[in-house]
Amino acid sequence: MECELISVGTEMLTGAILNTNVQYLSENLSGMGVNVRRHVTVGDNPERLEQAIRDALKRADLVILTGGTGPTQDDLTKETAAACFGKAMVFHPEIAKGLEDYFRARGVEMTENNLSQAMIPEGAEILENPNGTAPGILMEECGRMMVLLPGPPREMKAMFEESVRERIEKKSRACVLSRYYHLTGIGESAAEEALMDLMEGQTNPTLATYCKPDQVLIRVTSSGRNREEAEKFQENYDIIIRQRLGEYLFTESKDTLPEWAGKTLIEEGLTFASAESLTAGMITSTLAEVPGISSVLRGGIVCYENPVKEKVLGVSGETLRRYGAVSEECCREMAVRIRAIMGCDIGVATTGLAGPAGDEGKPVGLVYTGICTKDGVRVEENHFRGTREDIRVRSMNKVFKMFRDYLKERKTV
Amino acid sequence: MECELISVGTEMLTGAILNTNVQYLSENLSGMGVNVRRHVTVGDNPERLEQAIRDALKRADLVILTGGTGPTQDDLTKETAAACFGKAMVFHPEIAKGLEDYFRARGVEMTENNLSQAMIPEGAEILENPNGTAPGILMEECGRMMVLLPGPPREMKAMFEESVRERIEKKSRACVLSRYYHLTGIGESAAEEALMDLMEGQTNPTLATYCKPDQVLIRVTSSGRNREEAEKFQENYDIIIRQRLGEYLFTESKDTLPEWAGKTLIEEGLTFASAESLTAGMITSTLAEVPGISSVLRGGIVCYENPVKEKVLGVSGETLRRYGAVSEECCREMAVRIRAIMGCDIGVATTGLAGPAGDEGKPVGLVYTGICTKDGVRVEENHFRGTREDIRVRSMNKVFKMFRDYLKERKTV
Repeated sequence: MECELISVGTEMLTGAILNTNVQYLSENLSGMGVNVRRHVTVGDNPERLEQAIRDALKRADLVILTGGTGPTQDDLTKETAAACFGKAMVFHPEIAKGLEDYFRARGVEMTENNLSQAMIPEGAEILENPNGTAPGILMEECGRMMVLLPGPPREMKAMFEESVRERIEKKSRACVLSRYYHLTGIGESAAEEALMDLMEGQTNPTLATYCKPDQVLIRVTSSGRNREEAEKFQENYDIIIRQRLGEYLFTESKDTLPEWAGKTLIEEGLTFASAESLTAGMITSTLAEVPGISSVLRGGIVCYENPVKEKVLGVSGETLRRYGAVSEECCREMAVRIRAIMGCDIGVATTGLAGPAGDEGKPVGLVYTGICTKDGVRVEENHFRGTREDIRVRSMNKVFKMFRDYLKERKTV
Repeated sequence: MECELISVGTEMLTGAILNTNVQYLSENLSGMGVNVRRHVTVGDNPERLEQAIRDALKRADLVILTGGTGPTQDDLTKETAAACFGKAMVFHPEIAKGLEDYFRARGVEMTENNLSQAMIPEGAEILENPNGTAPGILMEECGRMMVLLPGPPREMKAMFEESVRERIEKKSRACVLSRYYHLTGIGESAAEEALMDLMEGQTNPTLATYCKPDQVLIRVTSSGRNREEAEKFQENYDIIIRQRLGEYLFTESKDTLPEWAGKTLIEEGLTFASAESLTAGMITSTLAEVPGISSVLRGGIVCYENPVKEKVLGVSGETLRRYGAVSEECCREMAVRIRAIMGCDIGVATTGLAGPAGDEGKPVGLVYTGICTKDGVRVEENHFRGTREDIRVRSMNKVFKMFRDYLKERKTV
């Protein structure tokens, strides 16, 4: 199935808003075996929008529009799309009633322009909006499907998942399966090279790599007449990927490294604390994004300044004077001390130079990362490249990688 | 001037990459008085790319293409664009020589396909790439300008700033000035409402609002035949914005609230530390993004768990038992204790419930934020809405707002 995405909103053309909707839809649609061929963004301008829709309908079986469906601009996307399919707009009293109830329940007077949301193209299917007032629309005509979704990502995603995904899967008349392999410790180009023979001339399954700092996500998508057939196409790839890249695999989900670490800590009931210098709280703050982390996350000490390392964390003054704060010795003591102070299973530490300037004759990018467990303490020296922020993120991810290595070794004993 | 942006790369159509280039270009171009009318993304497919370029050239004076200029896909964007202007490709030995030197200096054998980077459309201007090997291209024909930039954002931005910005400013033959007003403590819709009369039917200056969590950026863009004239158009707006929204203004730059806070701490030489429960290190970690912060950022204690609040930070057990961790009393002690432990000018604290579940009979979104200075301690009770992450970010920003209020009051005494 060939698909084009049209985003509607002047706020994207002025750069006020980053268009994340197209990435979400593209990733999900391609995971469903749909070929996304083009993204187009136009402003709140009916002529330009109409031209964009007519052009897309000439080329694609599926056109998904996002945005321009709110109460203030309601008519634009809906009316223009209806006109392209030659449909009139019809008033739906049950939607108007729902809107009145919605506003009454909030004690707010409904303004007249909200009623435009009750106008729907004739013959169109109405998609419920669990997170807002603007309904979505689905129209089919001569084998072409047009879907109108709201612009706010939270509303768009919920509506796509609840009302659109299944419809598209049905229309494509195939069972599509996606499997994920999340790697760390290998770069995207090295991962691609290892799988080059599979990627060249691929049709079924298809293989895509997605890159995040120090993490590579591989997605294998196969399709068949039924689930069994789709699974059969995956088997060979699964064996090859595990053979060639198994050592880098940390999870078979889309979870990032910090998400995986947080969920694993919770599952294993391992309590955790950090002593952070250059990452300055990024490790604990990122872990705290995982719901339920409070059962295992004790806390941490951000010791940006040397006196804090000595007086609050308890690194010996001798170590700091002799080796400096950016040293294996300091990192080792930081990891040991934080585990002791917090009385936890896993204590981690970071100390290094994120730039812009080096220090103590040491270069920017030199970072020591440490982990202390019941089995002892381990420190690694790293030389990271990139911006100040790159170096800090890589330092955080390295700590989670060391946690992964610890679990592996512990488990194989 | 009317402009369209074309992004080239299959990795955007599979959702592997979020297209941030168009937001950067749109924000900068509209700040220069250029009307961006459309964004189009196509894959690495010459037919679809050619169609996109020809369509754009029919409508716009300026077409900017990003991506598809690397060594592996080098021919695609450059050759297709040249064909649309009816130009042949010409071999440039000086570029080939530069590439050979580049690879030799890195001790890497240059592969044949790299030589395609030395092919340039005839009559085109070559734009230097300070951050990579693929040069940019600028072509003008019958009053239409076409610019080809590399896809990686770091290369694209540097080339745009160094070689393209001035050319477009010259072409538009006007002086364009943008002025910024960064507000906090007011929502985007309230800010827009306060300026609605200015925004309706605006031509010169134009006014745009950009929204971030708890921050609204207002940009006023004016143009004139020269700088004086452009400034004159700004004057009235400046007076009106200060009158109506002055109390919310925290900086007249594009800096976000944390960036402003970090720079202000450095400028004023105020040392800083945090005691963070639900934000879990986000305050220190975000401040640490500001280069030079090490002169004032002492550190912090992440006290996610109650025993850490008591034993490491020194909040009294009596307070925790009597009022709970999510209480004004606890937050007050946290702010006082962290300032004492770290011996700094500004100590801040957060404690609250980010969800998903409430606790101690208290609702999700209840957050106490505190600041302790030489003038005493102040705590505020907040009821934040949104996701777990929203609540944590709002808590952080509230702390920086309280720091702003402290500076204001301190200065007026």
